[in-house]
This record gives sequence, structure tokens and C-alpha cells, in this order.
Amino acid sequence: MRWWGWGDPRHGVTLESGALEFLRGELEPDAAPRPPVALERVRLDRSALQPHTLAELRDLLGAERLRDDRLDRIAHAAGKGYPDLVRLRRGEPQGAPDAIAYPGSREQLQALLALCVKLSIAIVPFGGGTSVVGGVAPLRGEHQAVVALDLTRLSELVALDERSRTVTVGAGMRAAELERLLAPRSLTLGHFPQSFEYVTLGGCAATRSAGQASTGYGRFERMVLGLRMCTPAGELISTAVPASAAGPDLRALIVGSEGTLGVIEQLTLRLRPAPEAQVYEGAFFEDFQQGVQAMREMAQEGVAPDVARLSDESETRMSLELSSHGGLVQRAGRAYLSARGMGNGCLSILGFEGEQTEVALRRSRARSIARRHGGLFVGQSPGRTWRAARFAAPYLRDELLTHGVFVETLETATSWSALSELHRIVGRAVAGALAGLGTPGIVGCHISHVYETGASLYFTLLAPQLAGREIEQWQAVKQATGEAICAHGATITHHHAVGRDHSRWMEREIGSQGLAVLRALKRELDPASIMNPGKLIG
Amino acid sequence: MRWWGWGDPRHGVTLESGALEFLRGELEPDAAPRPPVALERVRLDRSALQPHTLAELRDLLGAERLRDDRLDRIAHAAGKGYPDLVRLRRGEPQGAPDAIAYPGSREQLQALLALCVKLSIAIVPFGGGTSVVGGVAPLRGEHQAVVALDLTRLSELVALDERSRTVTVGAGMRAAELERLLAPRSLTLGHFPQSFEYVTLGGCAATRSAGQASTGYGRFERMVLGLRMCTPAGELISTAVPASAAGPDLRALIVGSEGTLGVIEQLTLRLRPAPEAQVYEGAFFEDFQQGVQAMREMAQEGVAPDVARLSDESETRMSLELSSHGGLVQRAGRAYLSARGMGNGCLSILGFEGEQTEVALRRSRARSIARRHGGLFVGQSPGRTWRAARFAAPYLRDELLTHGVFVETLETATSWSALSELHRIVGRAVAGALAGLGTPGIVGCHISHVYETGASLYFTLLAPQLAGREIEQWQAVKQATGEAICAHGATITHHHAVGRDHSRWMEREIGSQGLAVLRALKRELDPASIMNPGKLIG
Repeated sequence: MRWWGWGDPRHGVTLESGALEFLRGELEPDAAPRPPVALERVRLDRSALQPHTLAELRDLLGAERLRDDRLDRIAHAAGKGYPDLVRLRRGEPQGAPDAIAYPGSREQLQALLALCVKLSIAIVPFGGGTSVVGGVAPLRGEHQAVVALDLTRLSELVALDERSRTVTVGAGMRAAELERLLAPRSLTLGHFPQSFEYVTLGGCAATRSAGQASTGYGRFERMVLGLRMCTPAGELISTAVPASAAGPDLRALIVGSEGTLGVIEQLTLRLRPAPEAQVYEGAFFEDFQQGVQAMREMAQEGVAPDVARLSDESETRMSLELSSHGGLVQRAGRAYLSARGMGNGCLSILGFEGEQTEVALRRSRARSIARRHGGLFVGQSPGRTWRAARFAAPYLRDELLTHGVFVETLETATSWSALSELHRIVGRAVAGALAGLGTPGIVGCHISHVYETGASLYFTLLAPQLAGREIEQWQAVKQATGEAICAHGATITHHHAVGRDHSRWMEREIGSQGLAVLRALKRELDPASIMNPGKLIG
Repeated sequence: MRWWGWGDPRHGVTLESGALEFLRGELEPDAAPRPPVALERVRLDRSALQPHTLAELRDLLGAERLRDDRLDRIAHAAGKGYPDLVRLRRGEPQGAPDAIAYPGSREQLQALLALCVKLSIAIVPFGGGTSVVGGVAPLRGEHQAVVALDLTRLSELVALDERSRTVTVGAGMRAAELERLLAPRSLTLGHFPQSFEYVTLGGCAATRSAGQASTGYGRFERMVLGLRMCTPAGELISTAVPASAAGPDLRALIVGSEGTLGVIEQLTLRLRPAPEAQVYEGAFFEDFQQGVQAMREMAQEGVAPDVARLSDESETRMSLELSSHGGLVQRAGRAYLSARGMGNGCLSILGFEGEQTEVALRRSRARSIARRHGGLFVGQSPGRTWRAARFAAPYLRDELLTHGVFVETLETATSWSALSELHRIVGRAVAGALAGLGTPGIVGCHISHVYETGASLYFTLLAPQLAGREIEQWQAVKQATGEAICAHGATITHHHAVGRDHSRWMEREIGSQGLAVLRALKRELDPASIMNPGKLIG
């Protein structure tokens, strides 16, 4: 993965001239491209680890499993959030880990935790490194040094139980790697976050991830049957059983703990049959409200698509202009939409997966509901286009940054009753914060996941960067939107997790007693407070 | 509810002469009926509450909301487990609460907790009182007295959001009452445990309940969107949002906490449309293994019935003999089954609920799977009979006790791969324990819930009571089965909860670190240890 951005250095996304023209017209960013600095120009502090400390760590892990070379430290210096990328591209990462540990076994991992307690070294668990909320920022808390604990060597396939449809894997296995292993057996996990190519399964558990198809396959927390977490106090094991009433579900303490209690080391996951049919199609609604009604009814009648997305008017316009594949809807099609009164309409992507007859019935019922709310189906081409580009947005973001564009996303969820109001006030908060800085931009939003009781809202904003004050600009938007979301009783994050960037709102989210509970757990499992300081509960 | 048994004193179940004859032939219990003693003969210790303590409690709650009369104390002296009933019927409850508090508001409840901390009084939350694992046993731990906290006055409908399909209720509302409120709106919660008529919704959350239709409607923990729990440390609130990634899911700490951390006071629950179609039918399989294969495939292909039950050979025979409604399958039908090689077969009840076309498709696919495994469909009559008697078993149990029969159930769950072996070893453990006491009996088992990755096993045993040593007999079976389940890596309880009776296996279930976590939570939320002593973590 690129140290300053997303993805394999051999691949990238280039903005087409039409898209660039659109952005220049709308946002008027600085005309001069702003590429990332060269690797040699990245400013890096010396490792804070004393030679004898380093020697102790090397003794434990072996020289190959404890690294402190420049590239490795830079590559583990940040996740992939907007402020991370701004700083990395400038060559000014906000700190870097003093070393990177690559434990090769549970025993090594457990011993490493004990040694770090003894040496007063903070540990930041690092899976795919794709956090967009500062979840892997190498903060050291009260400690003299910080080590990134890279889990990619703990990525073995431990057991595959085809009869029970479960798989047990090391936490460092990538989601993409698991799908590659399952494909020949016609099985799938069905977890496809935008970070799919890089994200590790342990990371998905630690951050309570949702993927693009989670409306159908379920959020990651619903796929997790069992977990093993190494903590400084010892190993916490939640045995895989299909269901239990034996007290509180301890899986739910491990899932979402974001490395602050321990390191998830192994997971047992539920599998599904690979889908026999996959139908992805597009539909237009005259306005967002009509689309929302349709989505709600689909979810509540049990016929929601597996991928259920509905863009608002603004995002629909943005997507059509920016799409890297020649437009989700061809120009001729757009003329047709205009003629049908959908010229300023809302695009929905409905993706159905599963067994043939079931997909056919569910899709037919979903289409009836959509049509009842004025939905106009425009065929499978928008669905195909969306699928082809489903993991491309982070590449596009790098390209936008090069062109001086502030691009950020944020997400929340609330009940159907409160959804429209939340859509309005968060959109207004973004626009207000941007206008306040003299950098008005475009704000779009889509529903990314639907539930029987409500839905997520995923906002994307584009604005000209405030040159030299990019972080301040980002903070203003973050603060305004976080406050709006909390004031509305919605959740501060639907699937990006808390990390460093949302931790200030955790008390609003779970109350002072909820925070006290998380702190009590931390005292029990990580009494020396070495685990991922500054995240989740701040 | 009867103080010595189940249900409304105006209703009951009488064993038909055929059933009684069958039991006498099989079990040879004592011939003389053993009815419960009269209420006046129940031995009750004097309340341990000093007059001034009682006065303080009355001052807080009002005289009407703090009771210590004989009947109320006896009615709150135990749940409805086998040892509870044996003791109550003898007139020897194992202790009784010193008083019963009926708080009428959250504020009163919170103030009561503070007062009980000050006065060193243990609190046992009491909903429907239907626990079969000693969950409401009035144990006092280290404290001088114990008060049962009856939640039935906290049973208001707080809010119904039809658009978001959620309802917010006081924890003391009965499941049956909620269904009555929802029926005119064509909505349902869909939670139907055998204790449906009495169980409270707070109790379902506290015990991580599953109902008979939970294969379809989901376990209770899947219905809970938000909770408020009063704890001695303050109120812990989990706000209702459709989904979130904001740290560990604190709902999962409250659900299943069995009153040991605090008192669940309010819940927000997800609702479903009332089913348009309800088809319950019976099928026979030649043996349990074939039925298991069919059940597994239905679950994994996503076409499991909402109610999915499969009895083994022994339970099938037992059910047919004992059924209180003239037999699940008529005699003529049984001759037909014999002719088809199913004379010693396994009965399955498949109940499908939902929208017409969806039910039709799912049922047709499920039937194909069943037929592929030799399933023989015998029409809707067994399904109707099962539904009519679905809440009758606890009444029948009382009647069996009167006839000197030891009747007990226990349940567990494991993966599909491990299911057959678990079925064998638990059955053997029950039989062995009974034989060891010289009281051989009948052991039957059914799958009560299916999941993609495994299923529950629900065992029922019938044996002659060991007169005068009934509790010892029960303990021998409990110990043998608990050990067999834990040795096998299965869960000690799939839906009955832990309570007093399973707490000794909790360390085997969740490990020493898991137990340390639960104890840390308890120290944080209930530092004086007044909440439900002796339950869950012992």
C-alpha cells in the first residue's frame, strides 16, 4: 500500500477531464497540483526506544519480527483518514511508531504484551491500517515509546468447518484473502467494506465494521461466532456456539473494543453459500423522500436488497459528474430521465444476491414497492458500474487531494422517523461550517444500509482546501457535524468506528455510566493502560 | 399464578387415562397422588426486616408498594424450576423474601437501590417469576435481608413508533400484554417462550431469552434496540439506534445480566408486521440423523421455518403417548406411518409465518429439502395440535409431579458438526445418572431452534421420583448433564439462562478471564453487591 495514500502503487485513478472541469467549476480549488512529497523528505523523529529496550524486544520476537526502518515506520505512522493523508502528503506524519512488531504466534503476542507492560511501551494494533478515524494513530499515552503491532503474520486458516459453515482464521488475514480461499468451495463471508482489498478480519471485528452488502449479509458483528483476544491480563476467549443464554454476550465487548482492551488474535466466522444470482440495478426517485419511503417499506417487508443505496439529489448529481467510468447513467439516459421528471432525481442502487427463485421473488416485491413510490428502473448498467467501482473511492480521494480538493465522508444512523430531519441538519451543519471558513462546497448524502427500524446516512463533502489550514478546516466540519448528530440522538458512527476522531463524543453516545463501564473493563484487562492509548474512550 | 405451580388456578391440565397408563407402565412411580400442601401449611420464616428498616422502605415507596404479607412472600419465594416446585409443594420454600417492593417509577426504583445499599439489603428483581434455573431465588448473599423487586407496576407503554416499527415499554410489561396491544395495529413482537402468558419483557432481556418462534423472529437479544438499567452506581442507558459502530455494544452487557448488575427498567424493541400467513405442519423422518440433515440444509439455505422443531425417536414416542389433545397424530395415521417405515420415526413441526408469497416459496423449498432426506409430510394437524398446546407443558408438569413423576428439561446448543455426538453423550449422561440412583426413566430430545451454524438441543426426562430424595435426584442429573455439556464445548444454556443452577459452570463457559470481566462490571455497577446475589457468577 502507498505510504501517502491508498492502494497498490501500480494502480490508481485519474480524474477524467470532464470530472476535473466540473470540480473546477463548482469548487474553484487552487489550480496547481499538490502531489505528495518524496519519501526522503518525510520528517521522522528518531525512535524513542533505547538500544537495550530494542534488544529485549528483539530477543523476544527475533530480529526479523521487530523492525524500525524508515519505510516501515512511515507506513505505520497513520491510517487513511483525511487529516492522516494531509499530513503524510506534506511529509509531516504526526509521530510514527518507534518500532513495528510482527508476532508470529499467540504465545509471542501474549509475551510481547507482558514485556511492553514491563517496559512501559504503548501498543497500537495494526491490521490493514485502513482506519479513517485515527484508529491506528501511534499515540503513546503516558508511555515513553509506542510500538505498532502488525498482525499480518497471524493470518493462518486455522479451521474450515463446511458442515457448520464456519471458518476460524488468524486475525491478520485480509477479507480479500478469505474470499479467495472460499471461492473454490462456493462459500463466501459476504463482508465487503470499501477497504475490502486491504482490511483484516481482526480489524473488522475490532471496529464493528459494516460492509457494502451488510444489509443482506449482516454487519460484521453478526458474522462473528467466537473470538480470542490477548490482553495484558490474559487471554479472553469467547467460544464459538451458534447461540447461548449464558450471561452477557462477551463477544460484544471484544467486537468494537478497537484495540483498547487487547489484541484480537483469532476469529470464528459464519459463512454463507456463494450467491447463485447477483442482480444489481438502478432506479430513480423523483426526490429523496420518496426513495426513503420505498427503502423503509422494503426493509420492513423483509425484501430489502443486499446492497441498498439511495443517494440524495445532490449526491446523485455529484456521482453522475464524477463517475470514473463514463457516468453511471449515459447522457442519452439522462435526457430520458429529464423527460420523465427525474432530471434532478435521486439514484438508487439495488443489489440482490442469493438463490435464484428467492432473488426473483424478493426483487419483484421490492420493485413493486419502489414503483408505488414513483421509482423508475433504469436497468442493470448503473448497478454494474457501481460494482466495478465499488472499491475505487479511496483512490479517487488521493487524486482529489492532488487537485486541492477537501474530500471527507462521515456517517451516522437513526430511526426512520428521525431520518429526514437528521439528513437536513447534518447537511446544514457541513454547509455552515464550510461557509464559515469561506470555502463553500458540495454536500451529498446516501443511505448506505437499511434496517427494519431505521437506516444509515453517509455524507460526502467536496470543497476547496483551505491552503495551509487544511486540518483546521477539517476540524471545523468534524466538530459541527458531531455536535449535530449527538444533539439529534443519532449515533456518532454507523461503521467507521470511534478511534481518535470520535472519542470526544463517546460520553454523549453512551452516557457517563457507559463510559464508566468501558473504563472499568480497561482497568481489568489493561491495568497499565498500554493498549491503543487515546482511542475510543480518549 | 398458583403459588405452588404454574398458571391461573382456574385452568389446568389433567392427564388422560391413556397417558397415565403409559407413564405407570414405563416409570412405575408411586401410585398415591402427591398434591401440594395447603397454603396454611407452608413454613415461612419471619421477615428479617427490623421495624425501623421496614418503615424506611415504606416511607420511600408508600405502604401499598412495600408488602410483607404471607401470600405475597410465598408467591415471590421461588421461580418455577423443578427443585422450586418440589420444595413449594412440600410447603418448604428455601427462604422467602423479607418483603416485596413494587416501585412505580424510575425515580422510586433508583432511590430504592440507594436505600438498599445503605441498609445492606439484597435485591432480587422479579418479573414474571418464571425462571426455571433459580434466577429469582431470594438469596441474600452477605446481607441481613432480601427484598424481591416486583416490576409489574413498571409496565407502561411509553412510546409506539409505527413508522420505525419500534415500541418502548416499561420492563414489567408482560409479553402477552404487548401482543394484545399490538394486534389491532397488525404488528407483533414475535416472542413466544413457553412462559409467554406470564413472562415480562424485562425478564426476557435479563435472561437472554429465546422463544418458540425465534428461529424466524430472532432471539430476544436481536429484538432489543435500547435499554435503560438502574444500577446502584447510576443509570446505564443504551440508546435505541438501528445500528452503530461506536465501541462495544453495551446492550449486550445489559441483556443476559440476570439482575446481577442492576434492574432493567425500560426497553425499546423492534416490531414486525403481523404474519399474513401461518402454516404449521408435521413431517416424519425415518431417524433423527436424517431430520438433522434436513434441518441443517433448511437453515443454511435460508429457508428455515420460523418454528423449527425436530424430536428424536424417543421424544416422538413420548409426545405421541402423552399429548393432551388426543395425540399429535391420530391412531389411523400411525398405522400409515408404520406402513411407510416411520413407525419409530421422528416427528418434526415446521411453522412458517409471514407474507403469503414469501411463505409459499420458502415452504416449498424447505419441503423439497425435507423430502430429499426422506421426510414424509403428514399435514397440518400435528402443527395445529402443537400450536394449541404450545404453552401447556408447565401445566402438565404440575400434574406429573402430583403423580410422582420426576420431570425436567435442559437445553444446550452446538455446531452442526458436533450435534449428533452431543445428542448422544447428554442423553447417555441423563440415563446414566438416573440408572445410578435406581430410577431409570425416559429421555427424549428435540431440536428447538436452528441456526446457520448449528442448533439447540432440548432434552426432556421423565423418571419415577426418588421419594424424599427428590432434590438429590435432580442434582445428580444436573451435575452429570452439565459436565457432559461443558466437556463437549457446548453452551450450558441455550435459552433458560444461568441463574443459580448453572452458575457453577460459568467459568467453563466463558473462562477465568471472562469471569473476571463480569466481576469487574459488577464491582463498577454494584459495588455493595446487593443485586441478585448468588446468580450468574455465583
